[in-house]
Amino acid sequence: VDARDAGQLNALLEPLPLSAALRQLLTLSADDRDTVLELVPTELAAALVEEAPHAAATELVERLEWDRAAEIIDVLDSDLQADLIGDLDSEDAEAILAELEPEDAADVRRLVAYEDDTAGGLMVAEAFKFPVTATVGAVLRSFVDEDQDFERYRGQHPYVIDAEGRPVGVVSLRGLLVAKRSEKLSAIMIEPIVVTVDTMLDELQDLFDRHSFLGLPVVEADGRLVGVVSRAAINAAALERAESEALKLQGVGDELRSMPLWLRSRRRLMWLSANIVLNVIAASVISAYEETLAAVIAIAVFLPMVSDMSGCSGNQAVGVTMRELSLGLVQPKDAMRVWLKELSVGAINGLALGVLIALVAWLWKGNVWLGAVIGAALALNTMLAVSIGGVVPLVLKRLGQDPAVASGPLLTTITDMAGFFLVLSLASLLMPYLI
Amino acid sequence: VDARDAGQLNALLEPLPLSAALRQLLTLSADDRDTVLELVPTELAAALVEEAPHAAATELVERLEWDRAAEIIDVLDSDLQADLIGDLDSEDAEAILAELEPEDAADVRRLVAYEDDTAGGLMVAEAFKFPVTATVGAVLRSFVDEDQDFERYRGQHPYVIDAEGRPVGVVSLRGLLVAKRSEKLSAIMIEPIVVTVDTMLDELQDLFDRHSFLGLPVVEADGRLVGVVSRAAINAAALERAESEALKLQGVGDELRSMPLWLRSRRRLMWLSANIVLNVIAASVISAYEETLAAVIAIAVFLPMVSDMSGCSGNQAVGVTMRELSLGLVQPKDAMRVWLKELSVGAINGLALGVLIALVAWLWKGNVWLGAVIGAALALNTMLAVSIGGVVPLVLKRLGQDPAVASGPLLTTITDMAGFFLVLSLASLLMPYLI
Repeated sequence: VDARDAGQLNALLEPLPLSAALRQLLTLSADDRDTVLELVPTELAAALVEEAPHAAATELVERLEWDRAAEIIDVLDSDLQADLIGDLDSEDAEAILAELEPEDAADVRRLVAYEDDTAGGLMVAEAFKFPVTATVGAVLRSFVDEDQDFERYRGQHPYVIDAEGRPVGVVSLRGLLVAKRSEKLSAIMIEPIVVTVDTMLDELQDLFDRHSFLGLPVVEADGRLVGVVSRAAINAAALERAESEALKLQGVGDELRSMPLWLRSRRRLMWLSANIVLNVIAASVISAYEETLAAVIAIAVFLPMVSDMSGCSGNQAVGVTMRELSLGLVQPKDAMRVWLKELSVGAINGLALGVLIALVAWLWKGNVWLGAVIGAALALNTMLAVSIGGVVPLVLKRLGQDPAVASGPLLTTITDMAGFFLVLSLASLLMPYLI
Repeated sequence: VDARDAGQLNALLEPLPLSAALRQLLTLSADDRDTVLELVPTELAAALVEEAPHAAATELVERLEWDRAAEIIDVLDSDLQADLIGDLDSEDAEAILAELEPEDAADVRRLVAYEDDTAGGLMVAEAFKFPVTATVGAVLRSFVDEDQDFERYRGQHPYVIDAEGRPVGVVSLRGLLVAKRSEKLSAIMIEPIVVTVDTMLDELQDLFDRHSFLGLPVVEADGRLVGVVSRAAINAAALERAESEALKLQGVGDELRSMPLWLRSRRRLMWLSANIVLNVIAASVISAYEETLAAVIAIAVFLPMVSDMSGCSGNQAVGVTMRELSLGLVQPKDAMRVWLKELSVGAINGLALGVLIALVAWLWKGNVWLGAVIGAALALNTMLAVSIGGVVPLVLKRLGQDPAVASGPLLTTITDMAGFFLVLSLASLLMPYLI
């Protein structure tokens, strides 16, 4: 790498699976990564950028010279171009756009304006389209002629547009082959299913689930065909969303270890510091009962157990609700049904766990009343935890908040506080039997 | 629903998005679900079964009469057929297979035998194939004639097979259109990329990332073409895996609230009971220091804080490693590099959090030494937690265990124990300054 030997670098990276090549690239220092991306063939560099997770790809591109960045971006599909350009700062973005062909640059500018998880943000600007007056022969000839661009349209059916650029039909491959070459497209086309640029990812997933299309035409508010959103792009976006939701729960979002140390520390710390505040609130419940605790010190052994166990039960309920939300099987208005379902699981599991921990406490510390206090507290707190865990994501969704981010910390704080309070207040009540 | 009015049911469900229709179906009692699936048109019933998550689909089908189940299964793609049949108990499976056409049933039997996340388990048995001696004209005619089956091959390129059934070529649509109709396929075909039935999901994802194919031909060990694995099937499998990994972390796997109460309770309890054992182990550390705790009861307030905060830090590291594993950016052999990276983040964050919590403890309880004990314990435990969290998934993977399931509980137990131990042993050492 240090020798800047382009041929050898290429020979090294080319035969590797892309993910392995990317892994190699990301273990290098930032300067060495630049060198590699400058030296390898543009196609390979573009493939590496495409394989890289979002944040890493942006970082790779923004460090490059503008003309090299433009060369690499030029090879990518227009939806990826827009994702990258949209994440760069505006000076870099403008400079790179200036290096692209004016027409491509205009496409990218247009795509950048759309929201990420909408048809506009997920589509490619290139559509395989023909005027309504064209003949079957013209389409077949274009299959053959459009050498360069054909790949870009992969999987797309030819769309038929009217004089105003609105999609009025779609033609099947079979239709093209059966028809006479002189036939007008208007005679063999069928009505297309179109989506608007602001159609959301969930709805797009549903459409692709219901139909076997590989792509859907996307129109602006005025009805003009502006792009095509592919099944593959929708699947990739859904996969990315599923992965990032799980990580947002822990405050690490899209972190990769190849990112700078300070950035990684700062982002994790932000989330942890917020967590400290919640922890202090929960701990203040213990602080209020220090006398009880001092009298029966064995309780301190079981405090973390009760709060931790109910936290786990609650998180199970959060997990099921999040999954049902993402599968579209539950909506905020179903909160009551979800609560009843969770309450029944909570009653069974709370009872089982309560009896179990009561036995443990009794046998360990030799006081049956201590067992009763701990067991009752865990049983009640489990029912509370699953109720909150099942319903909180729905309430957050209803309030327009992201349930993936806020549900966990909210749940843990409440179950910690309630767990500490239940154990310590029950112990205070039954103090004569515990000492 | 109770009136068993097929027409009205269909009118009710048909216009809904599939996910909404499925939501309606799953809120019904099990008996009513059976009624609905018996009454609605087979296509709609099949679409609902297809939309349902894996476990729910199996449950829906296994409750139906065998002949109705066979009607519905007959409409599905063969990969889904195999998934469903494979999950039924063998009596149901045999009875349903007996109702299918012998040829279809044989296909399904064959598919069931393959592992889930391999090309064999993800492929459809129908391949769009032609003998090497066929002409371009024959292929084009089959596009037109194979009315019924054409849809099944969507997105597939025609594969060319030799006399032994081995794929020797693949033909592009463009090639077909450019060539003369009398030309032999052998003249225009290019060499295909083939995968074997035991190719793993990760490798398939990588192949589809590198190439723009919509499908790949799958061969048996003897080289015979036995099916085609599509890009869509790979994407769906990857999405399902990402979602289920996050949930396995909490012991809820593929639970849906429409499942029977006892099943849901039992599965959650199994995981929670294992967790209780880990909790008892951690709590025994506190138990060993009851004297220290009795002397400085304020420590009890901070014990759960230290263990909880380090648990969060460790889980962040687990999250990043799991993501890098799933992106293929890290491998078990990188454990040392990951550890050093985590150690630096841990040092910074541990210091920051330690100072923060030390100030809180000092100001709250009015003893600077108490602050020092708590702060030092949190700082050290944070470094330990991120080290374990970053490396443990890699070690589990190396040992052939599933890192998604075991990393969380293992981490939490160790950080709890270490946190309790650090706080209480430091407090024992500095006891004269704390009282």
